[in-house]
Order: sequence, then structure tokens, then C-alpha cells
Amino acid sequence: MPAAAQALLRTLADAGVDVCFTNPGTSEMHFVAALDSEPRMRAVLTLFEGVATGAADGYARMRGRAAATLLHLGCGLGNGLANLHNARKARVPLLNIVGDHASTHAAYDTPLQSDIETVARSVSGWLRRSTSSAELCGDALQALAAAGEAPGQVATLILPADVSWGEGAEALRPAPAAAPPRVDDDAVRAAASALGAGRRAALLLGGRALREPVLQLAARIAAHTGARLLGEVFPARMQRGAGLPPVERLAYLSELASVQLAGVDELLLLDAREPVSFFAYPGKPARLLPCGCRVQALAQPRQDLHDAVQRLARLLDAQAAPLPLQAVSRPPLPRGGLNARKVCQALGHLLPERAIVVDEAQTSGLMLPAFTAGAPAHDLLSLTGGAIGQGLPLALGAAVACPDRPVIALVGDGAAMYTPQALWSMAREGVHVVAVVLNNRAYSILELELQRVGAGHGGARAREQFDLGRPGLDFVRLAEGMGVPARRASTAQEFAAALRHALERPGPHLIEAVVPRAYGGLRLRLLPHLLDALHRLPPGMARAVKRGVAP
Amino acid sequence: MPAAAQALLRTLADAGVDVCFTNPGTSEMHFVAALDSEPRMRAVLTLFEGVATGAADGYARMRGRAAATLLHLGCGLGNGLANLHNARKARVPLLNIVGDHASTHAAYDTPLQSDIETVARSVSGWLRRSTSSAELCGDALQALAAAGEAPGQVATLILPADVSWGEGAEALRPAPAAAPPRVDDDAVRAAASALGAGRRAALLLGGRALREPVLQLAARIAAHTGARLLGEVFPARMQRGAGLPPVERLAYLSELASVQLAGVDELLLLDAREPVSFFAYPGKPARLLPCGCRVQALAQPRQDLHDAVQRLARLLDAQAAPLPLQAVSRPPLPRGGLNARKVCQALGHLLPERAIVVDEAQTSGLMLPAFTAGAPAHDLLSLTGGAIGQGLPLALGAAVACPDRPVIALVGDGAAMYTPQALWSMAREGVHVVAVVLNNRAYSILELELQRVGAGHGGARAREQFDLGRPGLDFVRLAEGMGVPARRASTAQEFAAALRHALERPGPHLIEAVVPRAYGGLRLRLLPHLLDALHRLPPGMARAVKRGVAP
Repeated sequence: MPAAAQALLRTLADAGVDVCFTNPGTSEMHFVAALDSEPRMRAVLTLFEGVATGAADGYARMRGRAAATLLHLGCGLGNGLANLHNARKARVPLLNIVGDHASTHAAYDTPLQSDIETVARSVSGWLRRSTSSAELCGDALQALAAAGEAPGQVATLILPADVSWGEGAEALRPAPAAAPPRVDDDAVRAAASALGAGRRAALLLGGRALREPVLQLAARIAAHTGARLLGEVFPARMQRGAGLPPVERLAYLSELASVQLAGVDELLLLDAREPVSFFAYPGKPARLLPCGCRVQALAQPRQDLHDAVQRLARLLDAQAAPLPLQAVSRPPLPRGGLNARKVCQALGHLLPERAIVVDEAQTSGLMLPAFTAGAPAHDLLSLTGGAIGQGLPLALGAAVACPDRPVIALVGDGAAMYTPQALWSMAREGVHVVAVVLNNRAYSILELELQRVGAGHGGARAREQFDLGRPGLDFVRLAEGMGVPARRASTAQEFAAALRHALERPGPHLIEAVVPRAYGGLRLRLLPHLLDALHRLPPGMARAVKRGVAP
Repeated sequence: MPAAAQALLRTLADAGVDVCFTNPGTSEMHFVAALDSEPRMRAVLTLFEGVATGAADGYARMRGRAAATLLHLGCGLGNGLANLHNARKARVPLLNIVGDHASTHAAYDTPLQSDIETVARSVSGWLRRSTSSAELCGDALQALAAAGEAPGQVATLILPADVSWGEGAEALRPAPAAAPPRVDDDAVRAAASALGAGRRAALLLGGRALREPVLQLAARIAAHTGARLLGEVFPARMQRGAGLPPVERLAYLSELASVQLAGVDELLLLDAREPVSFFAYPGKPARLLPCGCRVQALAQPRQDLHDAVQRLARLLDAQAAPLPLQAVSRPPLPRGGLNARKVCQALGHLLPERAIVVDEAQTSGLMLPAFTAGAPAHDLLSLTGGAIGQGLPLALGAAVACPDRPVIALVGDGAAMYTPQALWSMAREGVHVVAVVLNNRAYSILELELQRVGAGHGGARAREQFDLGRPGLDFVRLAEGMGVPARRASTAQEFAAALRHALERPGPHLIEAVVPRAYGGLRLRLLPHLLDALHRLPPGMARAVKRGVAP
């Protein structure tokens, strides 16, 4: 009799799970051995679990369905936790298969014995330990169904080694998924009245609302009613660029976001949440909406958003309203010494068709939205949960999901160093990812945050904690050490040449962009003054100013 | 008024916590700003939290007291979880300071909001969220007291940003630690009778029993009573080498360990636990002791072990028994093509005085104990919790703790890739660590485990999951990319030259030892046959055989 792991793999493949991002250990050996029995399952080996979980997130964002991870007990799950947190916040479907000791072994409290349930609970919407080989495939299908419940969540199935190696398992076929529940008429009518005459309304798009077909419907509604069209700060996946409706994303800096939101008195949430500041700051409010602004959500996360937006458009007679589309517009190629702004500008100039852009550039990516606004239509994937170390794994997963599309990952030097192992898996899989590491030799965002939390500019020892230049990181060597060809660029021309080179050739590439520390085009030390000044300007004028500096 | 973080740092420094391994974010900015107010606190920046937690473990193993970590919310803690698991199993004192959002901010469920308590619970023996600035220093002292309770544990203090930036905190002085409870006379008498005439007894040493002064006392007792002296498989810190009592460590492979234990009918545990197999294997028992063997522990983990062993020695009249000591003996320098065995041999030949040896070489380190047995006295730190990715961080922490001692870390290629960022902190701190990466281009131990769990030799797709050679990892470039000078060695002579070179020069060095896949000197495919054969041999003969292949 074959091991239950074989039936599990067949069940997963039948249900459409065709990729598993792995970092196995002894307890997962029967799962690994079963790979040869199920050719539909592609096992992508990673050298660190955070790469596996981040890649599964990237895969799900682009394919809309779950990839699996294969992790080794509580410690392997722990290593993957930060990117599972990001995946949870992105609300993607994701299936963790976490191997455990054989059930009989727990009694001995051996070295790797860990409390997998406790670790898993913090990120999993669904969690179960499979207790018999006969039930394993049923458990797996329930896990998948839970992962796929709209809008998507992390499901964790704990797989003891003896359940995996036991006999008597039979592969099962998934039942059709239930349709998501419908939004009731009152909610649609309430949304319509919020967009009525005389209101200064805005639609805030998040989650699924930043992609077709909801994006287009929302844009028609906004155009028809005069409402503004805003986007959440950190979208899981946003479709943007020439030929798509332009959406004004809220800024990460709450000082800027509150300027963007000034004057709004009705906010309609489409798969988004009320905007609040990312961190708390002494003496500053967390809520960013102007006083008296009313907020409502068109649909709850589990409800059928597309249907609700269609009905709202019908009710407002907006289905045939003109759809405002972003015109083609590319910035000129930059010249001279390189900085973060010019990296974004060059990217705007050269962005290929159908690119997937991963943004984990923190301070260095500030100008990315502005410079790519009129570039060919592309998908933007962002850091949904704030746990840095997501960019490279996400790019790997997106590239596995969409082998015919170029993936460009903009990653800060600090962020890149949490999960650099993703580069090795990129080389192994031969995926077309261009990893642009913006090396400003600092946790630059923390220099800013130190001031924002009121801790001043910091003494010498505090500032050392932001200094990544002692010693300097050489990302070209790091990439080459993991099998990824790499170039360093110190001028705008070098960067453009390296980007062209990388985009023209298949497989992964890394470009180390050597840039000075700066918040976009702004010197850090000037920013707090600007933020203060912005707060004191009338909203209209402040909006005009911030268009130069915010997404 | 200064922020509470300043009083916290002063309290920690007064209590002897003088090192903090950090990876801060915005919520920790006031702690970071306070570093300039407390020059006694050394903040060692890491690029990944698993490096911080592993280094704090290494520091505690060598210094016997807690270092602190500074981590950023649940995700930062999650990244540090695997090495906290190892630290928990090593039973070292360790203080995590985990920053959180300001208390008022939790209501908004912002992107980084996470369930820190749940994540922390799985590894922490003590856990508290500080709720006011006035109580912060008292909380910190309680955390430290808990961390230091014999034998040591992980204590986690959650520090909300507003508690850190609030006012009204006063630095506090620690109360003297309570003495550990005494073992009662009955337990000592019972231990003495187990070692009495006619019994085939063994002492199994673990934890604190593998270091002076307990080690010497235990060795006298064994010599006096004729009992064997065994050591646990994965010691946190073991003192060994010339001039120290030799201890026979149990093998990782349960097939070998059960041969080592054959014939024992009384096992006395000194800070150790009953030996069981690391993983469960189909149809094989987890318990390794011969049928009918009696087991008792001399002391409970929290009791005064040194006192108990002294009393046992007195009761047995063994205080003045001759102390068997390891003679000086070094293997000759190896020659020819390099393999894992020759790496261990060269290390045995060249090991300097007072070295600290970190062993995370998995299959490649099999011959390390044998070849270094007669080398100058050294400390051996091993992988206590089975979560690989510990070796490099542990070496960093040990080197920070003991700046006047050379640290040599033997790390497998697979293990090195979980936490390679430790190299950067080594370069930054200028510590004298020689990292030897044994690059066999494989998760070699899994090739063996696949067979041990009865999953056969694996098909082509299964075997791909162990293959780290596609693409090959270039550890010289990786090290240089993080500021650590590095060399590659493919012959025994090159390796010895590189090791000499590194030992003679301060600061960190990496040596990539290119070795074939093998389980020590044994070809992998032969090992299962040997293991089977060993089981069928009479114990005495089998012991003789295994001395050639086990620690």
C-alpha cells in the first residue's frame, strides 16, 4: 500500500494546487518521496522558510488560488511566520502543510518538539492537525476550501509523520466552492446615497477592488458621481498604468495621507478599511479622516463585492459612464549621478508590457507611483503587513505564477537582507525576475521614524542602529554567490543600461543601485519641516504640493 | 523628563545586562534613542532577528547570564523564533524585549498588528506585557530574575511604544537572586545505591553537568564506582579536550546510540534526560535504553546540581578518587582531496588553546568529536533544539561574550543558508570567528533520513529536494558580500593553510570547504547496511565498531 502522502498529493493536484514551496526535514520525507508519484505538483525548493511563505503569497496574488508550502515543525513554521503575517494581511488563499513528529513521539519532548498549534494560530484563519491517514485527504480539502473562502486566508494543516507514512488513504475530489453571500439591498442603497449630490465623497479601493472588473466599475461610479478615487496605502495587488483607471494611493506618511483625505465628508470603502496611521506617534491621532467624515463599507470581506459594485453602478446609472483612463506617459531617461528618484524614473521609462512590479523599496520607492503612472499596464504588489523581507520571495512566487511576464522587484538594502535566499530559488527555477536593490547603506526609514516619534535626531550610538554601511553590503557578490548574475550601477546611465540588459534576457538578474540616503527626492532632514508646513496649508494647496512627493 | 526607555536601559545595565542584539523598527525608536544615555549597554545590530536570538543564546552559553534582544513586534519575534526554540532547549537565560505599537493603537488593527503573546508563548518560560512606564523597570527586573532561574529560560517582555516613550520611570536595582533549592538526601542516597556494586551503571551528563565543576566530580564518581560516563547528544556547552575528563557522547543516530547504551542497567541522569530517538521511525522504538534499565535523575532542573553531586561524591567516598583525564593527542595533518573527515582532522591538528567550537555541521561533523578529543581544552556548543540556522549566530554571540577566545564554527551548507546574515554582524563587530562552511551541495542528512523513515532512496524529483548544487552556492562571494574575508579549499592542504591563516589573524574569516557528500567517512548508501549489521552484533563488539563512526 502506498503511503498516505501519495493520496494527499493527488488530492491537492486534483484540486488545482500545482505548486508547493518547500523546505522539508525528516518528518516530511514521505511527502517528498511522494513527489515522484504526482508529476502535476511542482516542488520549488527554498533555503529558508520565509522564502517559501512569501513566494506562496506572491503566487496567490497573481493566480488567485492557493499554493502550498511544506514546512518542518514549529521552527520551520516560525521561520515562515513574518511572510505568513504579510499573506494574512493580503488576504490571499494559502495552504501550509507543516510536518510534525509521529503522534507517538510527542510524549518524549525531543529537541524539535514544538507547539506548532500555538505558532500557527497567530497567522492562520483555519488550523487543524490531521490525526489519521484515512482522514488526511478530507482534511486537506477542508483546508483548501477554508483557504479559498473569499477573500482568502491562510490555512494550516499539521501533518504528523505517521499520518503521512500510514496506509489507507484515498485521494478525494473537491466539492464545488459555494458562491459568496450577496450584499443586501440596503447596503447598496446606503452607498448610493453617500455618493449623492452635494456630498464630497471618495471611494477608497483596497483588496479585490484594485483589480478588474471592480476597478473599472468603481472608476465609472466615481466619474459619474464626482467622487474621488483613492487607493489603500499597501495593496496586495493593484492594476495600474496606461489604459487603466488612475487611482490616487494614500501615502504611508500619515501627515501626507491626512492632507489627501482633507475635505472628504463621505468615504465609501470597497474592500478597504478606514485609513489610520501605520504606527502611533506621541500626541498625534491615529485616525486620519477629517472630523465628521462618515465611513461605510459597501461589502463585508466575505461578501460578493463584484456583484455589489455592479448593483451600485446600476442604481446610480453609472454603468455606461465614461471610464477615465490613464494616458500613456513615460518620463525621460534620467542622467547623471544615481539616486532613488532616478531609479524610479528609469523604471518608468523602461517598464515593459505586462510587468509585475513588487515594491519593497521603503523610502527609496517614494517616487515609483508617480513615474510609472503612465507606463504600460502592470500589476503592483506591495508590502501588506509591514514585515519587511517580503519583496524577493514575493517576486519569486509571482514569477512562478506568471512565467510569461517580467517581474521587477524594487527592494531596499535593509529589506533584501531578511530573505536574500530567495535569489537562489530564482536562479534554480530560472524565473525572469529583475531584483533592483536600492542600496543607500541605511535603514533610512528609521532615521525618519526616530524624528517622527519625537525621539529627536538620535546620538551617535542610536544612529549606528540605522547604519548598514559598516561594513557595506555588496549585493553583486551576494547575488553571484547564489547563482544570480548581477551588476552595480552608480549613475543613471549605468542603471538604465543594466535594467535594459536584464529585461532583455531570461532568468533572474540583480541590479545594485547605489543611491544616497534620501526620502525620494527630499533630503531626510527637510522632511519633518515639510510635513509640518503641509499641515498648516489649506487642503487644496497642500494637495498640490504633496503631488510632488507622495504616491 | 527622559523617556522610560532610558530608565530601562539603566536598570538592565545595573543588573549586568551589557549586550543587546538588535533589529529595531519604529516602535523601538525610544529604546534606540536611549542607547546614548547608557554607555554600558553594547547594542549589536543584526540584519535578521534569527541572528539576534541565536547570538543571545551563544552569549548566554559562554557567559552564564542573559543578553537582551530587541525585536520588532510579532513578526520580528517570529523571525527569531527558531533560535529562541534552540535557546529554550539549551536552557539558557535570555531576555527578549519585543516592541509593540502604542497601547492605544491596537484598536485599529494596522498592518503590523500581530498577536505577540501567542507567538512568544511557544518559547518563553516567562512572558509579560508592560502596561505603564512607572512599572517598566520592575517588569524588566522580574523578567531578568525569571530568565536567570536555574538552569535558565527565555523571558519575553513586551514593550509598547507608549510605555517606552512615557515618563515617570525610575531605574531600579536588582534584588539578590535566591539560591536554588537543595536536592533532598533520599535522592542522593538513591543515586548512590544505583552506582553500587554489581550494577552496570552509567552516568549521563547533560546541561551544567558537562562543565566544571560538576564534570570533574561526575568523572571521579564514575572512575570510583566503575560506572560509564556518557554525554547527551546535543549539549548546550561541553568542556572537553586534553586535561579534561573524557565523556562519550551519545550518537544522533538512534541505531548507534542504542548500541552505546546496550548493557546498561542503571542510568543516572545529571541534568540530562532519558535518551530517545530524535525523530520517530516506522516500526522502531523511540526509547533507546535496554529493556529493564532503571533510570533516575539526581536533581530536578531547578535544584542545586553542584551541591547534589558534591554530596553524592562524599557519600560514595569518591571526592579524592583519581580523575581520569584526556591525554594530549592530535591527529596528523591530512593530505590529498578534501572531505568532511579531513576537515575535522585538520581542525583536530590545529585547534588553538581555549577555542570555542560551534558544531552545526550535521553529517559532515561526524568525525569532529573523535579528532578533537585530545586537542587543547575547548568548549563545544551544539544544536540543542534541532532548528538549523543556529551555528553562525551562536558563534557571533560566543565571540561577543569571549573576545579573547577564538571561535570556530563548523556549519553545513544547508544550515549556513538559514542565517547567513550573521556574517555581516561578525564583520561589523570585528569578532574572531572562523566560519567553516562544509559545502557538500546537499541536504545530505535528508538523503539518509529518507531511507531511515522507510521511504526508500527516492525518485528523481524527491532527490531534487536535497540538491543544493543547482545552482551551487559560492560561500566565498557570500561572505565577501557581507564584509568577511573568505577562502575556498578543495584539498586538505588548502584547508589547513586557510585555517592557519584565519586563526592567526583577528576578525572574522570564512572558509568554504568543498567536500563530497558522505556521512563522515562512510558513503551514505552503505550506512543503512552498517546500522542493520550493528544491531545484530553482540553489544561489546558493536561498541568497538561504532567507536570508529560515532562521537
